[in-house]
Amino acid sequence: MEKRPSCSSLGPGGLDMGRAVFKAVHHSVPPSLSGRRPTKISVVGAGHVGMAIAQTILTQDLADVLALVDANPDKLRGEMLDLQHAAAFLPRTTILSSVDFSSTTGSDLCIVTAGARQIPGESRLNLIHRNVELFQKIIPTVAAKSPECILMIVSNPVDVLTFVAWKLSGFPPNRVIGSGTNLDSSRFRFLIADHLQVNAQDVQAYIIGEHGDSSVALWSSISVGGVALLSCLEKEEINYEKETLEKIHKAVVDSAYEVIDLKGYTSWAIGYSAASLARALLRDQRRIHPVSVMAKGMYGISGEVFLSLPAQLGRGGVLGVTNVHLTEEEAQRLRGSAETILEVQSHLEI
Amino acid sequence: MEKRPSCSSLGPGGLDMGRAVFKAVHHSVPPSLSGRRPTKISVVGAGHVGMAIAQTILTQDLADVLALVDANPDKLRGEMLDLQHAAAFLPRTTILSSVDFSSTTGSDLCIVTAGARQIPGESRLNLIHRNVELFQKIIPTVAAKSPECILMIVSNPVDVLTFVAWKLSGFPPNRVIGSGTNLDSSRFRFLIADHLQVNAQDVQAYIIGEHGDSSVALWSSISVGGVALLSCLEKEEINYEKETLEKIHKAVVDSAYEVIDLKGYTSWAIGYSAASLARALLRDQRRIHPVSVMAKGMYGISGEVFLSLPAQLGRGGVLGVTNVHLTEEEAQRLRGSAETILEVQSHLEI
Amino acid sequence: MEKRPSCSSLGPGGLDMGRAVFKAVHHSVPPSLSGRRPTKISVVGAGHVGMAIAQTILTQDLADVLALVDANPDKLRGEMLDLQHAAAFLPRTTILSSVDFSSTTGSDLCIVTAGARQIPGESRLNLIHRNVELFQKIIPTVAAKSPECILMIVSNPVDVLTFVAWKLSGFPPNRVIGSGTNLDSSRFRFLIADHLQVNAQDVQAYIIGEHGDSSVALWSSISVGGVALLSCLEKEEINYEKETLEKIHKAVVDSAYEVIDLKGYTSWAIGYSAASLARALLRDQRRIHPVSVMAKGMYGISGEVFLSLPAQLGRGGVLGVTNVHLTEEEAQRLRGSAETILEVQSHLEI
Amino acid sequence: MEKRPSCSSLGPGGLDMGRAVFKAVHHSVPPSLSGRRPTKISVVGAGHVGMAIAQTILTQDLADVLALVDANPDKLRGEMLDLQHAAAFLPRTTILSSVDFSSTTGSDLCIVTAGARQIPGESRLNLIHRNVELFQKIIPTVAAKSPECILMIVSNPVDVLTFVAWKLSGFPPNRVIGSGTNLDSSRFRFLIADHLQVNAQDVQAYIIGEHGDSSVALWSSISVGGVALLSCLEKEEINYEKETLEKIHKAVVDSAYEVIDLKGYTSWAIGYSAASLARALLRDQRRIHPVSVMAKGMYGISGEVFLSLPAQLGRGGVLGVTNVHLTEEEAQRLRGSAETILEVQSHLEI
Repeated sequence: MEKRPSCSSLGPGGLDMGRAVFKAVHHSVPPSLSGRRPTKISVVGAGHVGMAIAQTILTQDLADVLALVDANPDKLRGEMLDLQHAAAFLPRTTILSSVDFSSTTGSDLCIVTAGARQIPGESRLNLIHRNVELFQKIIPTVAAKSPECILMIVSNPVDVLTFVAWKLSGFPPNRVIGSGTNLDSSRFRFLIADHLQVNAQDVQAYIIGEHGDSSVALWSSISVGGVALLSCLEKEEINYEKETLEKIHKAVVDSAYEVIDLKGYTSWAIGYSAASLARALLRDQRRIHPVSVMAKGMYGISGEVFLSLPAQLGRGGVLGVTNVHLTEEEAQRLRGSAETILEVQSHLEI
Repeated sequence: MEKRPSCSSLGPGGLDMGRAVFKAVHHSVPPSLSGRRPTKISVVGAGHVGMAIAQTILTQDLADVLALVDANPDKLRGEMLDLQHAAAFLPRTTILSSVDFSSTTGSDLCIVTAGARQIPGESRLNLIHRNVELFQKIIPTVAAKSPECILMIVSNPVDVLTFVAWKLSGFPPNRVIGSGTNLDSSRFRFLIADHLQVNAQDVQAYIIGEHGDSSVALWSSISVGGVALLSCLEKEEINYEKETLEKIHKAVVDSAYEVIDLKGYTSWAIGYSAASLARALLRDQRRIHPVSVMAKGMYGISGEVFLSLPAQLGRGGVLGVTNVHLTEEEAQRLRGSAETILEVQSHLEI
Repeated sequence: MEKRPSCSSLGPGGLDMGRAVFKAVHHSVPPSLSGRRPTKISVVGAGHVGMAIAQTILTQDLADVLALVDANPDKLRGEMLDLQHAAAFLPRTTILSSVDFSSTTGSDLCIVTAGARQIPGESRLNLIHRNVELFQKIIPTVAAKSPECILMIVSNPVDVLTFVAWKLSGFPPNRVIGSGTNLDSSRFRFLIADHLQVNAQDVQAYIIGEHGDSSVALWSSISVGGVALLSCLEKEEINYEKETLEKIHKAVVDSAYEVIDLKGYTSWAIGYSAASLARALLRDQRRIHPVSVMAKGMYGISGEVFLSLPAQLGRGGVLGVTNVHLTEEEAQRLRGSAETILEVQSHLEI
Repeated sequence: MEKRPSCSSLGPGGLDMGRAVFKAVHHSVPPSLSGRRPTKISVVGAGHVGMAIAQTILTQDLADVLALVDANPDKLRGEMLDLQHAAAFLPRTTILSSVDFSSTTGSDLCIVTAGARQIPGESRLNLIHRNVELFQKIIPTVAAKSPECILMIVSNPVDVLTFVAWKLSGFPPNRVIGSGTNLDSSRFRFLIADHLQVNAQDVQAYIIGEHGDSSVALWSSISVGGVALLSCLEKEEINYEKETLEKIHKAVVDSAYEVIDLKGYTSWAIGYSAASLARALLRDQRRIHPVSVMAKGMYGISGEVFLSLPAQLGRGGVLGVTNVHLTEEEAQRLRGSAETILEVQSHLEI
């Protein structure tokens, strides 16, 4: 186990005090038992998104060690201290930080939230190029320090950058996922639940495909407490406008933009979303989440492209992709998403 | 129970869809049973501190209804939406917001984090005057809308503003507390635990008095897993410099400044601190926390002043103050804290 | 708030010691604020089922006060003490007990697990008669002491006894539920999940109707991570024997008998099942659970009969019943269940 | 990772169904990543105590795999099924069972609750002999199947049997603990808290020594919310009878007997107690609990004897023993406890 950082400014008195509080135990205690490391999560990028993820992971007690990385040493140390000061209110989690990734060694899960911000007037492609450059610095180091970790990419555009991270890491595709439409699907379920006055946890509904404008809402697979929504509406001869459904999907697509317009960034919901993925992965929950996975060969997609499909997640990463039925229209939209992403990728040099 | 807000932009289709999903139940369901309201917490101020508190309360499932208030309608709506979008990851909590306090009606606990920021060159007293003006707008409205709530003040300077809130609310003193040194004490326990390599939850240690430079560290009452620290050090004839102890206290006092210097504000630790107080109060935990309470008549303090003492908190607010032993030096420092605060209060008109 | 029981054998010293530990607070603290009682759950019957429910409720921190009732004062006091001794490991819940129901006054939820055991050679109808006699003693008293509570019946045969409890309580039907097939559905989901190597929480599947031999498995509404199972099997042209499906249903029906054969009674799973219902009800979760509800007028059922249907549960009790689609065969079986129960009820005098 | 057991009676259809629900993922998924096994706890003995421990561990989500062992295959299978049926209400934990310990392979923690019951008229020493014989069958097998586990002994007389388990396992003493007075201390804290109307979690108080009649209550180290109880009573010149204190200690010692008299056995409190130890150990909480540890060399004890002292527990087992101050009388009683246990041990052949 790692040496926990101590407050060096307080000097060496701690050792003596510790000796006073504890009796010497007359048998040597190995620092850790072989084959059993503490569960460790690293979060790269200590901005609003990274910190919301880190704090939610901490509150939900998902890791024994949490390592933060950021290029700005002051911001980074401030965030680490702020979390550490909460120690008395929380189960004991060791919180580390480093500018140079050294604190991430041996992580089980590395969550990458770092990303360049769009400069006014900058083209989307140029932004992607800058983020690819950033990933060229981050990913190989992260992968070298934690060669057996699962990589979770949160930075945007998430599908392209998950592909980039996969390439740069040399990891098998089951150990690289993007947070993708996990959050879009939560927003979708919230809006449907709110509309129907039910609990969002009783709504099954997926948004798949690209995390962004071309995402695909799977209307035919929505169910509410076991009731297939569309066929129920038809059976009951309820008049519903396809427009209403499209409005809900549009509201989902717009909601990230709306929150950014209103408060300047999104943070809380993506924090909970990423934490839910971390739990499914590290606790081997085998739960199904729509996340960005290698989609080659599925639904007629032929290129190497990552986009969101309902995937079963466990300790081994992506364990499978559910065989969710798409209408021909939905499948066509999904292939459209894939084309869009592949086109962008064709301009990248990695 | 309150009408939950719905996405008005989606039109009235929800009703029909809801009717399709649910069969009419052939007996009227009263909206709520008498004598049983949902547990409701309001957070006034949606800045970094207010939102960290709100999000921690949400993650820890402490309320059925969470109401946010802020003067900036855009920021406020953005924060509300960001929390709502996490619905599918969380137990069902209704999240409301309002600029005009209307969403706070009937709260069990109102947490006030709103406060003016110091203008460069502004005197501390002038800042307090501006905050008192702000409280004159906030507190009477909050108190009128939730006449039976407990008021928790987090805004700084917390001890003076808790006194101001008490005066403006007309509430009995047991229903007005300031977050005070609850967080300072957590930082203190973290630093001692870190120094001794133990779990902060096994360290009992209090910082009392003013939340700020004149706070008092109660060295004589520190215990670690049942071991009284100072007497243990003496018995074991461990040489410790009183300086080391003072360094730890100084580190606590400086840590808020340090975090603010480094990241611009503090948020996470105060979020956990306030949530721990909310739990003790609303779940009637009767736990002991050092918080800012009316201290008149204690340890020789004769004026009407709020400062932090270890208080037992439950559904009725402050249930008692523990009879923690102070050395004469500690008691004198505490009275000094009281004098400092009273002096500031003498300049206020409320 | 109620007077907490204290260890009378220890004498009145507590008061003096308490006075020593706490300073007198110079303002009177009302015992509780009006309009806010602690959340209180009563469990009637301290046998294996009742205690598994009580302990799970305690571990999951669902109540502020937990009251136990049993006819055997020794058993009852032993169980209360055993739970109280765990106080230092748990959030503070007050645990009460009484032989005469006095401890249940003002409950939000009363869970009835009491029931006579079958005497060898006794007819099923005779057993029911004896349980009706027992309920004639229990239910009116429980209802009088907690006139606004929700009644949850767990005793078997649960559907008939829920009807009996409804009649004897004079409560509106939305405040009387039977634990019904909530547990059968969990077993069903476990067996399907185990068969498919997925997480049971990603399986939506209901057993409805009578809790017992005539229960109805809703094959057409099973979905796994959004994939409708039957239509998926058909589309993929997977050969599956209808027999396999029937085997799973049969395994569910048999599993209670199997556990009883093996260990003598069931306890843990019904404990978690009832606790999940308690959470949905008291935290106003509005979640959908298959529980025994008044089914008159649904799916062609014309008599006053309680049987399990997927119902939305919240603070008001049963808020609605989902419009789940039944095939004609399923609906016919459901009506068959209803007939069976009505036939039994025709022999009862209540 | 282990093969999860499936319902063999359902035949091989699961594979085909599973194939239908999930698309083939076009990259091989290793069954588990090297260096990261799931957290596994084994409970030996599926009686009231063992099952209360198992169920509390399950509810608190402390393990990925839970293995039960009992000599009675029917009872064992019944308990396993009863826990498995709760799957839909719980995070995903794999529950295994075996009569022959095969399911325990690779455990991180093995909790032994198995023990013979006293035959009427049997001497205490004879009972111990029979339990030693039982341990001679259990411990070497458990240790061989999980050579790096921590052993926690709950069977009584716990201190002698912890010594026996240490000898039979060949483990270093830091990896063998007895549940000891962890529960007695909880009862002690509950009684003090109840007496003073505070939260038991704010009471620090230890019972140490033998788990049984000769246990030692450390009056001088009791503190309540930071107030040292005895010196507070003296300072306030509160008259307290030493008798009252002794009554509380006597109530603790008697309470196990009382619960056994009343309900026939103890279960819930020991379940929470063992689960709290499991959390401290497996989550490396480094928390301090009074548990039975090798005490040679402490407080003047010269023999190889296990008895309870406040020990710091973490992933490595016992990390240290706190240097709690004993009065001369307390130390003498502790040595008396040690002598009693050593005398018993002198009659054992191991």
